[in-house]
Amino acid sequence: MTGKSALDPRPAELADVPGFRTGAASCGLKTKGLDVGVIAGGVAGTAVFTRNAVTAAPVKVSRPRAREGRLCAVVVNSGGANCCTGPDGLRDAEEMTRLAAGEFGVGEDRVLVASTGVIGRALPMDRVRRGVGEACRDATADGHGDLASAILTTDTVRKIASASGTINGKPFCVAGAAKGAGMIAPNMATCLAFLVTDAAATPEYLQELLPAVAERTFNRVTVDGDTSTNDTLCLLSSGATGNSARAEGGEALSRAVEAVARELAIMVAADGEGATKLIEVRVTGAADDREAELAARAVAESPLVKTAAHGADPNWGRILAAAGRSGARAEEARTTVRLAGTSVFERGSAVPLGPGALDKLRDELRGEKVLVELDLGAGAGSAVIWTCDLTKEYVEINAHYHT
Amino acid sequence: MTGKSALDPRPAELADVPGFRTGAASCGLKTKGLDVGVIAGGVAGTAVFTRNAVTAAPVKVSRPRAREGRLCAVVVNSGGANCCTGPDGLRDAEEMTRLAAGEFGVGEDRVLVASTGVIGRALPMDRVRRGVGEACRDATADGHGDLASAILTTDTVRKIASASGTINGKPFCVAGAAKGAGMIAPNMATCLAFLVTDAAATPEYLQELLPAVAERTFNRVTVDGDTSTNDTLCLLSSGATGNSARAEGGEALSRAVEAVARELAIMVAADGEGATKLIEVRVTGAADDREAELAARAVAESPLVKTAAHGADPNWGRILAAAGRSGARAEEARTTVRLAGTSVFERGSAVPLGPGALDKLRDELRGEKVLVELDLGAGAGSAVIWTCDLTKEYVEINAHYHT
Repeated sequence: MTGKSALDPRPAELADVPGFRTGAASCGLKTKGLDVGVIAGGVAGTAVFTRNAVTAAPVKVSRPRAREGRLCAVVVNSGGANCCTGPDGLRDAEEMTRLAAGEFGVGEDRVLVASTGVIGRALPMDRVRRGVGEACRDATADGHGDLASAILTTDTVRKIASASGTINGKPFCVAGAAKGAGMIAPNMATCLAFLVTDAAATPEYLQELLPAVAERTFNRVTVDGDTSTNDTLCLLSSGATGNSARAEGGEALSRAVEAVARELAIMVAADGEGATKLIEVRVTGAADDREAELAARAVAESPLVKTAAHGADPNWGRILAAAGRSGARAEEARTTVRLAGTSVFERGSAVPLGPGALDKLRDELRGEKVLVELDLGAGAGSAVIWTCDLTKEYVEINAHYHT
Repeated sequence: MTGKSALDPRPAELADVPGFRTGAASCGLKTKGLDVGVIAGGVAGTAVFTRNAVTAAPVKVSRPRAREGRLCAVVVNSGGANCCTGPDGLRDAEEMTRLAAGEFGVGEDRVLVASTGVIGRALPMDRVRRGVGEACRDATADGHGDLASAILTTDTVRKIASASGTINGKPFCVAGAAKGAGMIAPNMATCLAFLVTDAAATPEYLQELLPAVAERTFNRVTVDGDTSTNDTLCLLSSGATGNSARAEGGEALSRAVEAVARELAIMVAADGEGATKLIEVRVTGAADDREAELAARAVAESPLVKTAAHGADPNWGRILAAAGRSGARAEEARTTVRLAGTSVFERGSAVPLGPGALDKLRDELRGEKVLVELDLGAGAGSAVIWTCDLTKEYVEINAHYHT
C-alpha cells in the first residue's frame, strides 16, 4: 500500500507518509510532462482557498466540501486553470472528482479538485478523463506517482518539504508538495499546495489548524502581488499512526505542519518567475503587527526594491519610500535599515560606508538570499514577508505566456 | 519681462503665460544637462504633496508655505531627491529658497522648493548654490529658461501642456511642466509638476481647486505603484489678466487647469520607465466610484497585466484576476471585458474569437495606446487609471539606477 514506515522521520515524498498513495499521468494538457495528479488515503482533511472575488471552477466545487473536514482524496491538473469558464467549467470540475471518486471507491463529495494554468479556456475533457483514469490507476498500482511534478507550470523546481514529530511517544510525519511561480500573492493559501500527515486528527481540529498556518506561511509570500483565482492549500490526515492530535499532540502536529508549509512557501518565493534570489523582508518596531505586515508587504511588492535587489544595488531609499507609502506609521528619526546585516540607515540619516564596506555589501547582495531589515521605531509590531527579485526573465515569461 | 501676449491662446512654454519667467542652469548634479530650474512671477499660488509618510526635505519645507496660498516662485533641482538626509537636508532645502528669494526680491516663505533624483544623498551645495544663482539670473535676463528640461531624470521626453479660456470675455491661459518616469503612483500629486496661469485667483480659490484637480488627474496615473517621497504639484497665478477667477470665471479656470493637469499626467504614464505604450484602464459597473478605482488601480498595477500588454497578448484572465483581488465587488456572471474595443469576456464566459479576429486584436494591442474596459456588473461606479506596460527596460533601468 504505502511506502516507507513512519520510523523514517522525514519522508521524501507525500507517498512516504503512511496511509497515502499518489499517482500522476501525462495527457497532453501541457506541451510536455506530467499534468494530472491524484492523492488518496486520507480519512480527514480540509483546505483553504483564495480570497480573490473571482474564483476558478475547482475552487467553487471544493470550497463547500472542505468545510465538512472530511476530504480524503485530491485530483489536480496543470495546463489549464478552469477559471472564468462558466457553467461548463463547473461541470468539468465536478466530473474530475466523480472520476477519481469512482476509481478510489470514495464519496464524490470527499474529493478536492484543483487546477492551474491559463485562465479562460475550457479543459479538453477527453484528455482530462484519460489522465485522471491513468493517474488513479498509477496511485493504486505503485502508489508513488510523481504528483509534485504534475502540478508545476512555469516553476523550475519540484517543491517538496517534510517534518516529523512525536505524539504520546509515537512518531508521526508531515509531507507537502507545492507549486508557485507567477500570480503569487496568496491570500489564504498559495496557488496549489498539498500536505499529508499520518497523525490522526479530527475534522474540527484540522479546520482550526490550517487557516492559522496559512496566515503565517503561504499568506506571507509574494512574487508579483497578483493573488491567483485558483489558490488552494489542502491538508489530509490518514490517521495511520493511531495518535490523536486533538488531545495532547496538537501542538506537535501544529508545529510540524507549519514547518512544512513555511518551507514550501519560501520555496515558492525563491522560485518566483524569472527570480534569481530570495528576499526576506523583516519589519520590526511597527505600531502593531498589522502595520508591520503592511510595511513588509509594500517593500516586498515594490518593483523598485525588487529590481534593485536584482542589480545587487544597496538602494535603501526605495525601501523607506515603499514603507512610507504603506500606511504604516514610521518615525523617520528613529528608523533603521539593514541590508544583508549591514546597517545603511540609522535614526534619520544615511550610514556612511567606505568603498571597502560598500564593495563587501554589494558582494553579499549578489548572493541567492537577501535579508532586508527595517525598524520603524514606532512600536513593538513585527512581520516577515518573503519575495524574490524582479528580472527581465519575469517580463519575458509573462509577455508571452498566454500564446 | 514675459513672452507672448495672452492673445496667443495656447502657450508653448510656462514663460509664455503673462507674468511668468523661467530660468535653468546646469551645475553638475546630473552627469549632463540642465539640473536646476526656477519660476518667478506668481502673486498667489499653492501646492499639494505626496501622502507618503516618509517625505523629502523640500516637501517638509514647502508644505507649510503652500498652506498660505501665497507662493510666488519655485526653485527645483534634479539629480538628487534630498530625502532621508536628516537636519542637514532641511537646511539645504531652506537655503535653496533663500537664495532664490534674494535674487527675485521676494519673501523666502513664498518660495517653493522641490527636488528629484536618488534618495539618501546630501546635495552638493557648492554646486547647487552656483546653479540656483545662474538659473535666477537666466530667468531675470531672458525669462525663457528651459525649466521643463531641468526637472527630468529618467524621463525620455519633455512634458509640457497648456490650455486657454475666457473669463468675462477676457482670455487667460494655463501652462504646465511635469516629470515622471519611475516611483510613480502619485498620491495627491505626481513626482513634480508646475502649473502657471495669468488668470487672477485668490489663495483660497487655488487651495480649493488644486487638490480636486490632483485627485482626478495625477492621482490617477501609476507606473510602478511606488508613491514617491517627493511628489509635488504646484499652481501659481500671476493675475496678469486682471480677471477674477473667484467670481464668475471659476469654472473656466478649473476646466483649463484640469485639462493641463490631465494631459501632463497622461504624458507621465506614457513615458514611464522603459514603457513602450500607454494603458488606459476604464472600470464601469462597480458598486460605487471608490470600488471602481480599487479595481482599476489593481488592474493598472498588476505586473501580469502590464507584461501581457507589452507582449500584445489578449490575456484577459489576468485582468479579471487583478480586479477580483482588489476588494471591489464583482458579479462574475455579469462581468464584461473589452480589449482595444473588442469584447473578449461577456457575462461569465469567454467570447470565442476566430483566427482572423484574434490576429486583428493582437495588431491593435501592438499600438502605442491600449484601452482596457472592464464592467463589473455590480452597480454604477466608474473610474479611469492610466499606466504603461512593464518591460525588460524597466528592470534594466532600475537594477542599476543608484550606482
